Amino acid sequence: MKRIIVLTVLLVSACFLSAQSVPYNVVFDLTSKDTNNHKSVMRWVQMISAERPDAQLEIVLYGQSLDMIVKDRSVVANELKEITGNKNVAVKVCAAAMKRHNIDKNQLLPGIGIVPDGIYEIITKQKEGWGYIKAPH
Amino acid sequence: MKRIIVLTVLLVSACFLSAQSVPYNVVFDLTSKDTNNHKSVMRWVQMISAERPDAQLEIVLYGQSLDMIVKDRSVVANELKEITGNKNVAVKVCAAAMKRHNIDKNQLLPGIGIVPDGIYEIITKQKEGWGYIKAPH
Amino acid sequence: MKRIIVLTVLLVSACFLSAQSVPYNVVFDLTSKDTNNHKSVMRWVQMISAERPDAQLEIVLYGQSLDMIVKDRSVVANELKEITGNKNVAVKVCAAAMKRHNIDKNQLLPGIGIVPDGIYEIITKQKEGWGYIKAPH
Repeated sequence: MKRIIVLTVLLVSACFLSAQSVPYNVVFDLTSKDTNNHKSVMRWVQMISAERPDAQLEIVLYGQSLDMIVKDRSVVANELKEITGNKNVAVKVCAAAMKRHNIDKNQLLPGIGIVPDGIYEIITKQKEGWGYIKAPH
Repeated sequence: MKRIIVLTVLLVSACFLSAQSVPYNVVFDLTSKDTNNHKSVMRWVQMISAERPDAQLEIVLYGQSLDMIVKDRSVVANELKEITGNKNVAVKVCAAAMKRHNIDKNQLLPGIGIVPDGIYEIITKQKEGWGYIKAPH
Repeated sequence: MKRIIVLTVLLVSACFLSAQSVPYNVVFDLTSKDTNNHKSVMRWVQMISAERPDAQLEIVLYGQSLDMIVKDRSVVANELKEITGNKNVAVKVCAAAMKRHNIDKNQLLPGIGIVPDGIYEIITKQKEGWGYIKAPH
């Protein structure tokens, strides 16, 4: 009986553990065309990475936001170069959105990942327990 | 003892099962008046449904977005007719927002559901493990 | 064996309990400069609090939204005074955003809390099982 009580405590702890320790994992959902919003998201990612080097951060781009990661169009190319060098930061663009906007992968800035479906990428991160922030639109 | 170990494994698996398989369930939060955003959300829902017929999708409308589902005002009436015929897709409008904007239920396009409180509908889906996407505003 | 079955049922119930009862807990993410959006969020919080006095609500301000909680700039000062008197409602501003916008704590309306990092505040609430609503931008 004692063993069962110990087991119960362990299992309940296991179930709720993820709710108790809150890692700094965030997926940013970026659909905005507005370059001010591109700058805001980049600034947030840079600030968080500086304060919390353990933070796992991912920006997912789809909708109208793709200029942010296209050569000769991005207003944050330098910042992107810096943050994509950080192994804890990922910047991913939706392949379906690239197709719709006629953007080829050789037009992307270096370090940008491609995912088949930006929305599914985001909800997968949510399901894995990452925080979700919709970037300003 | 062996039985307890097996039990432990089973229970821990049960706890984390939902995190391992990621179903395509998404609630879209739509508050925008901008018809371009109405078109974007409709296009996303159509694309996801075509690619992933098993996807469970729901659009919840409140705030300034209600013209999207009102007769003679919607710019996506045809698309709505098509997607609301899909049993895996739901389009629901907040009754409180309808009241505020003086919209009666007979003004709604066919196939649109009504929920008492759009925000509570959304957070209920989140709690049930659905992904959440804030549509562009 | 019977004891183990009972235990199993209890534990599985414990694991899924939070998914079954959906409390009205919501964190609102507010980054918008637009005062119409400030009014919308205040109206939602007031309506929810009136309908569901048990609801736990929190507004987190960062980005471009800070005028909403600054003296002589807020267009919802009276509404804020009322809702921050409700122990189930919290309004919190990001200290990093205050610094960036040169806003000192003595400029804040009464009842406004300060958090070091607005994004971390939001994802912590998400992890604790609160619903998340991105306010219109």
